[in-house]
Amino acid sequence: MKTMIGALIIMLLPLIALGKDRPVAPNGISLIEGYRNWQVIAPSYRDDKGHIRVIFGNDTAMKAMKEGTRPFPDGTIMAKVAWTAVKHPKFPVATIPDGFAQVEFMVKDAAKYKATGGWGFARFVGNGLKPYGRDASFVQECFGCHTPVKGNDYVFTGFAPVP
Amino acid sequence: MKTMIGALIIMLLPLIALGKDRPVAPNGISLIEGYRNWQVIAPSYRDDKGHIRVIFGNDTAMKAMKEGTRPFPDGTIMAKVAWTAVKHPKFPVATIPDGFAQVEFMVKDAAKYKATGGWGFARFVGNGLKPYGRDASFVQECFGCHTPVKGNDYVFTGFAPVP
Repeated sequence: MKTMIGALIIMLLPLIALGKDRPVAPNGISLIEGYRNWQVIAPSYRDDKGHIRVIFGNDTAMKAMKEGTRPFPDGTIMAKVAWTAVKHPKFPVATIPDGFAQVEFMVKDAAKYKATGGWGFARFVGNGLKPYGRDASFVQECFGCHTPVKGNDYVFTGFAPVP
Repeated sequence: MKTMIGALIIMLLPLIALGKDRPVAPNGISLIEGYRNWQVIAPSYRDDKGHIRVIFGNDTAMKAMKEGTRPFPDGTIMAKVAWTAVKHPKFPVATIPDGFAQVEFMVKDAAKYKATGGWGFARFVGNGLKPYGRDASFVQECFGCHTPVKGNDYVFTGFAPVP
């Protein structure tokens, strides 16, 4: 019996690994995987936070960014990943990423997230990807901060061009 | 006859458009197209230059970056694109890209570029993508600057991790 249970556990291990839970924000938005391989909308730097960042977009976001579509269509997802910013040890005039700080998502669904401009917000902090916010009302903080760019469908970031 | 020549020109136009010349650095390295859609190695910021940057890698570069392979294999290409850095007009604590400043390439071919650590260097400046350097000796400037990171196969940038 012990052997059978042992064998069963070994057989199930890959399934358990595949089914690892993604962290979920208090408003129900799960961490969206794969964003590190999405295309780049733009980098940014916040010396007040000590963060250097890249804003990535999924295919829907990239198309809308390049074509200037506003409001962004449903299905748009942007991921803003922040690393702690440090001086390069061999070239201190350059500020570069060190450790992972957090990743934030904006997910467009005009109907579902009508109360916050059509955007669902989520933030996952540190290497443990701890969901930010005590309850679902945390999105008011996100939405409030994005209000000054209401005219750009609540999005701060523009597409960084190359010729 | 005029009609035939006219028809021939119309037929050839797409070929002429496809064959548009890419700018070439004095060492013979042409601008490598498509880098804006490559994956991200890391962002960086240079307040001394007033530039915010993203370093992109082709597939060979990304594999070597993620696996920590040194020296980088032949075929590795990295593209460092720099935009002029400005304060976000609606959120001035954030520094963001404005216009395109330049793009620099490092191309690994251990035999071909043996004299400069196995790396071919090129820089294209401004929206006109003007090749940098009067003659092929410009690479000594690039290589000299990269000497402090000889121990990392002359590469300053490391892969910015996410959990």
